[in-house]
Amino acid sequence: MSEMSYIIDTLYVLFAMTLVVFMYPGFAMLEAGIVRTKNVSAVLVINILIFAIASLCFLLIGYSLAFGEGLNDKNINYATVLFQMAFVGKAMNIMSGGISERAKVVPIAIFTLIMATILYPLVVNFTWGSNFLKDTILDISSMHDLAGSTIIHSTGGWALLAALILIGARNGRYTKDGGIRIIPASNIPLVTLGALLLWIGWFGFNGGSVGTIVTKDKANLVSLVILNTNAAGFAGAIAVAIMMYIMYKKFDITMILNGGLGGLVSITAGADLMSIYHAVIIGAIGGVLVVIGVFTFDRFRIDDPVGALSVHLINGIWGTLAVGVFVSNISFFDQVKGVIFVGLFVFPISFILLFILNKLVPIRAKKDDELQGLDVKECGLEAYPEFRRAF
Amino acid sequence: MSEMSYIIDTLYVLFAMTLVVFMYPGFAMLEAGIVRTKNVSAVLVINILIFAIASLCFLLIGYSLAFGEGLNDKNINYATVLFQMAFVGKAMNIMSGGISERAKVVPIAIFTLIMATILYPLVVNFTWGSNFLKDTILDISSMHDLAGSTIIHSTGGWALLAALILIGARNGRYTKDGGIRIIPASNIPLVTLGALLLWIGWFGFNGGSVGTIVTKDKANLVSLVILNTNAAGFAGAIAVAIMMYIMYKKFDITMILNGGLGGLVSITAGADLMSIYHAVIIGAIGGVLVVIGVFTFDRFRIDDPVGALSVHLINGIWGTLAVGVFVSNISFFDQVKGVIFVGLFVFPISFILLFILNKLVPIRAKKDDELQGLDVKECGLEAYPEFRRAF
Amino acid sequence: MSEMSYIIDTLYVLFAMTLVVFMYPGFAMLEAGIVRTKNVSAVLVINILIFAIASLCFLLIGYSLAFGEGLNDKNINYATVLFQMAFVGKAMNIMSGGISERAKVVPIAIFTLIMATILYPLVVNFTWGSNFLKDTILDISSMHDLAGSTIIHSTGGWALLAALILIGARNGRYTKDGGIRIIPASNIPLVTLGALLLWIGWFGFNGGSVGTIVTKDKANLVSLVILNTNAAGFAGAIAVAIMMYIMYKKFDITMILNGGLGGLVSITAGADLMSIYHAVIIGAIGGVLVVIGVFTFDRFRIDDPVGALSVHLINGIWGTLAVGVFVSNISFFDQVKGVIFVGLFVFPISFILLFILNKLVPIRAKKDDELQGLDVKECGLEAYPEFRRAF
Repeated sequence: MSEMSYIIDTLYVLFAMTLVVFMYPGFAMLEAGIVRTKNVSAVLVINILIFAIASLCFLLIGYSLAFGEGLNDKNINYATVLFQMAFVGKAMNIMSGGISERAKVVPIAIFTLIMATILYPLVVNFTWGSNFLKDTILDISSMHDLAGSTIIHSTGGWALLAALILIGARNGRYTKDGGIRIIPASNIPLVTLGALLLWIGWFGFNGGSVGTIVTKDKANLVSLVILNTNAAGFAGAIAVAIMMYIMYKKFDITMILNGGLGGLVSITAGADLMSIYHAVIIGAIGGVLVVIGVFTFDRFRIDDPVGALSVHLINGIWGTLAVGVFVSNISFFDQVKGVIFVGLFVFPISFILLFILNKLVPIRAKKDDELQGLDVKECGLEAYPEFRRAF
Repeated sequence: MSEMSYIIDTLYVLFAMTLVVFMYPGFAMLEAGIVRTKNVSAVLVINILIFAIASLCFLLIGYSLAFGEGLNDKNINYATVLFQMAFVGKAMNIMSGGISERAKVVPIAIFTLIMATILYPLVVNFTWGSNFLKDTILDISSMHDLAGSTIIHSTGGWALLAALILIGARNGRYTKDGGIRIIPASNIPLVTLGALLLWIGWFGFNGGSVGTIVTKDKANLVSLVILNTNAAGFAGAIAVAIMMYIMYKKFDITMILNGGLGGLVSITAGADLMSIYHAVIIGAIGGVLVVIGVFTFDRFRIDDPVGALSVHLINGIWGTLAVGVFVSNISFFDQVKGVIFVGLFVFPISFILLFILNKLVPIRAKKDDELQGLDVKECGLEAYPEFRRAF
Repeated sequence: MSEMSYIIDTLYVLFAMTLVVFMYPGFAMLEAGIVRTKNVSAVLVINILIFAIASLCFLLIGYSLAFGEGLNDKNINYATVLFQMAFVGKAMNIMSGGISERAKVVPIAIFTLIMATILYPLVVNFTWGSNFLKDTILDISSMHDLAGSTIIHSTGGWALLAALILIGARNGRYTKDGGIRIIPASNIPLVTLGALLLWIGWFGFNGGSVGTIVTKDKANLVSLVILNTNAAGFAGAIAVAIMMYIMYKKFDITMILNGGLGGLVSITAGADLMSIYHAVIIGAIGGVLVVIGVFTFDRFRIDDPVGALSVHLINGIWGTLAVGVFVSNISFFDQVKGVIFVGLFVFPISFILLFILNKLVPIRAKKDDELQGLDVKECGLEAYPEFRRAF
């Protein structure tokens, strides 16, 4: 029976892992659809390189740092390695998406290497992993974060915030007289496809994070987690749709999709401890936070083309805190402590690393290259060469 | 052993459910590719809101109405709830697709709410569910409809027919002198991607409807169902390809894809009772019916941009009747009765509800907004703002 | 327990099969993105017809030829039939992709029928199947080819090479003075999406080829196979990215993606026998071979728009030989023999069949139709009718 359990869990983890990998085309299509056509190839190259570099670095080095066991340990379950490896690129996808349209490929590739080899593995080490901080005052392993509202989404978000402060807004995004120029998404079907692939990937992301399915209670828990994940996503999308309609009488689809994604991030920490009704409430608030976040960051002239700070950082924090608010036997203090520690760990280190990196390999493209579009300079091709531009 | 069965069935249902959810990007891409560029964002918003609203309403209310058990019942299997919940939006996807390019977002969102809360749950109640009509003359639960040729596809199709009669054709589609203007699909790769995602989703749709995989016979049955599903789809696509080539010497890809989808709908009622050879025959006839249907509806000036009536309504009926024709121990009468009852239930109620809704919130966009494209008015953006239009 | 094993294996094979079917939209999007907009619909029709015709012919006839058991055998496992059936179109996808933009639909459809009914089933018969060549000097069944580096990828590649020699390059691709005109991919996001779907499909392609998951060792083996598959893909992509950057200071995304795919092909023969470190090395070499292959074939004026010869033929050979190089108890001679035999079997037969077919139904479109684009002549429509062409 124990062998049968092992087999079923392997199949379950491989299934969940595959769904998480669908988030790579998810992020790639979402970002390729949001940026202007002149930057689409560069964004896609970055997505592919993150997939490849992050996975390989984590596989060869980062995994051991996080979990204290190496690939040569004889009891290693490769399905679990695959599952963990599918996660690591997400933090970088979040980070790279937000600095789109002006950051170059090489520095992002280098930072991906650092993130996947050291930075993200350390965050995992302190929480889900072997815990270097055990028995110290800094121990945050009692924070409940099922699938990484803080550990992945906020980590990516903090690194992004550091990068945004360092490299600044896209040229022409904010005018000298305080105006904000809207840069519309270039391909709405791609944005939608990407968001829906992310959505489906989340079933594996959260559902797989339960870790095992081989008791009746665990099977029910995995199902509940996916149901809550779905419900929070729906609630986020609906909340933003209503908000948009009230505010503008328009259904801004990119905002609605980001609302859904915000709902998904917000339930990621606690989907295993919530009732469906709580999931709906948390997700709806998550959607509202996306709208507030997008407008607020814009006001502070922090230029995040894909809304990653609002979706991932803000909702990563909200989702983690929500577990402390809504679940009686979870310490709110532990949740706050985890959120703050990860922020204080990731943000300054990212800032310092990016600052040094920027001295060695300037992160930001030259102004002329940015205006011409990164595709020509970085990739030597255009994303849609046969289509005539309207502007 | 019983617990192990429960666990494996949970994994099987979660897998099938995930495939069904892939039908959401499937419908979204298919429809976004078929409509004109000026209506793409509106179509996508509608698809997202259907996904969100239909799922959430069914989860919170409709599920109990259909199956007589609530979310708080202690024996509820959330995996099954997820699976059923993944189905409900399909009926609305079918309906909304056919009224694309002139129907507004808000009335469709409201009708989605009604469909998912009451109308579709009642149809399920009468057939797969707790059956309010039991022991009455109207009982149709002896109709064999594995995965919903009638229960889902025809239900969506009847609601669509009601809407089409009510709101009429797109401006310029039929000229006063009896001419029919062809409006070409704007993005063929999206249409193809969408159709293939639907196809793959059907493996879960039909395969998951067997309900359990935990005996050898059931495992074989699930496999046979998917094999038949696939075979009927292939046969439908090939039949239409041959037909198109004979008629025009051209391979009209949207028609071929719809032929495949028609084959898939036609096997949905009886994939568990058919041999592979029957599946091929039923699917090929399904494909032919799509072509006949598309031309016939056009002749009657019923303007269905995506061919949903032919794919889903006609083949939903054909597939349900085919079970009675090809399977010896199935009563043809029961099949006919089920088809007619669902039609007489869904069509008039939909018509009345849509008629009332139309008085309160006009379903159809204003002519100027339709001519300009719904994206500007409904979404405040364009789907492809940087691409210059050829016309 | 034996029944439980049967059930779990069925679920595992259905899961793997589903992933393999995702390779159909994978190939379709990849090719639709690479060819010029004027040929996109024709490419998509061909992909759909390959999916339908190859699957149906293999199901009804080819499967029996390959494995010596028919659909009516009482012990047949339909899940396995589905899995094998999902493979067969791949060889044709490889072949048709490389003759894009000048080959017509009908002859490819006819050759698909031949390939799926006879040619590919015979190759499978000699290797994975019932083996007509058993106890003869030609027996190649001792070649180790887990998931078909040779059996599928090289088979498709040899047929492609025969077709390319027969029908020649696209008009304008090579100038009379020896120049090579680069024809850029028309839609980079589609190329990327397609490559990522292929990538994910490969998890099922290789992982499912282990055949069973129901012992602890097999469960670990399936996981290792997927991990190696992934690792080789990453290594191929990274190797090409570095190469491109050194050579041109540009990240050519189509080349990087093809590098990843080359890595995936190269590990397909031996993913079950390799350590992760070997997988990385084999995949990296696979990527490098793609670059060398693309330049070499171009120099010999063999015009393969999607790089299929380099990705599938060259790496199919490399991957099969690599098993003999890196795995101690595998005979390098058996690997070489298998590679050569399949080449000597598929290439001349394909050439003869295509030669005869070409006399009956000219494979190549007329020059005017090619220049105008195949979509108009073959499909009677355009892929993107509303988008104004830049040239």
